[in-house]
Amino acid sequence: MKKGIFITMEGPDGSGKSTQIELLKAYLEEKGYDVLITREPGGTRISEAIRAVILNREYSEMSPVTEMLLYASARAQLISEVVGPALESGKAVISDRFVDSSLVYQGMARGLGVENVYEVNLRAIGEYMPDVTFLLDLPAEVGIARKKDQKELDRMELESLEFHKAVAEGYRSLHTRFPERIEKIDATLPIEEICGIIKGRVETILSK
Amino acid sequence: MKKGIFITMEGPDGSGKSTQIELLKAYLEEKGYDVLITREPGGTRISEAIRAVILNREYSEMSPVTEMLLYASARAQLISEVVGPALESGKAVISDRFVDSSLVYQGMARGLGVENVYEVNLRAIGEYMPDVTFLLDLPAEVGIARKKDQKELDRMELESLEFHKAVAEGYRSLHTRFPERIEKIDATLPIEEICGIIKGRVETILSK
Repeated sequence: MKKGIFITMEGPDGSGKSTQIELLKAYLEEKGYDVLITREPGGTRISEAIRAVILNREYSEMSPVTEMLLYASARAQLISEVVGPALESGKAVISDRFVDSSLVYQGMARGLGVENVYEVNLRAIGEYMPDVTFLLDLPAEVGIARKKDQKELDRMELESLEFHKAVAEGYRSLHTRFPERIEKIDATLPIEEICGIIKGRVETILSK
Repeated sequence: MKKGIFITMEGPDGSGKSTQIELLKAYLEEKGYDVLITREPGGTRISEAIRAVILNREYSEMSPVTEMLLYASARAQLISEVVGPALESGKAVISDRFVDSSLVYQGMARGLGVENVYEVNLRAIGEYMPDVTFLLDLPAEVGIARKKDQKELDRMELESLEFHKAVAEGYRSLHTRFPERIEKIDATLPIEEICGIIKGRVETILSK
């Protein structure tokens, strides 16, 4: 059924996902693709409303299960309204974060368990697993330092350094769990080099 | 662990849940209970924020899976913040709707499947299943007619008569699925008679 290509970009805050998404978009457009970029949580008006609840700095009392279910609900709406239809019509979709963020943040760093979070999320994403996921790997300290310069931090970004270290470590172990789908890239490499690695992998997928 | 008593009230809109909750509260207070009444979706500031998304009349594009996950997320927060602590401290908790609403509305009327919805919700409610659930059984047409007189309808209440008929039918089949926990009561009976049936069942539970 699925005719387009679905690429997700993962990694800690400040790992350079946005920059690489823009470069990848230009590359895919050169290849003739109609490219759609989405961000998680968000990407539809309902998902953005859910995002506002998830990231609200006031809500420090939010339970890990609530958080996990809210991310999954925003994802379900994004899939049904945007990602699914775009892929069916042959577009390239690049998502800034996707299901792996939930596996790492809620499954590992919050301790809910990867399988638990994965099973709930399978209901949200159905058949739409990414064709490839680029994991921009960065030590937690570096990511936070980069992010702090950018803007006011949201509820997730305000988490402890310990939490962000668990996230960085979680991403690494997730890579060993889905080695075929997830490509881990050292995010401290020069931008052009990272971009080259990404293009190479996408090229391989497109030529199949 | 659980020391209080957890009672939920279910049934279509307009079936008289609020009235019976007030009567039951007075009865339990006479019995010496500290009684907490909650409503779903809602009951905490985070759950109320989620409620505002779920019931927004504008959001007709909401997918059934999104809706199911949002209800479960509001429920998870209510459990972790309010219901769980109240039961642990020995209170009586009466909830206006709970997990059975999701099993019926999303599992049956929206067609997601009862088992599917139940498995997701088990993550939200953990060990806190109701001790007893009163199902106020009412033909869909009667419930809607009662409700229309009350106020402006929300997104769920605006659903078709066919949907509300599926809900009424779903509640009946759910009763046969959980016969020990769910007590079905004819909601067209006089208020006092319904209240008598409810008190009788609660009396039995308390005397155990």
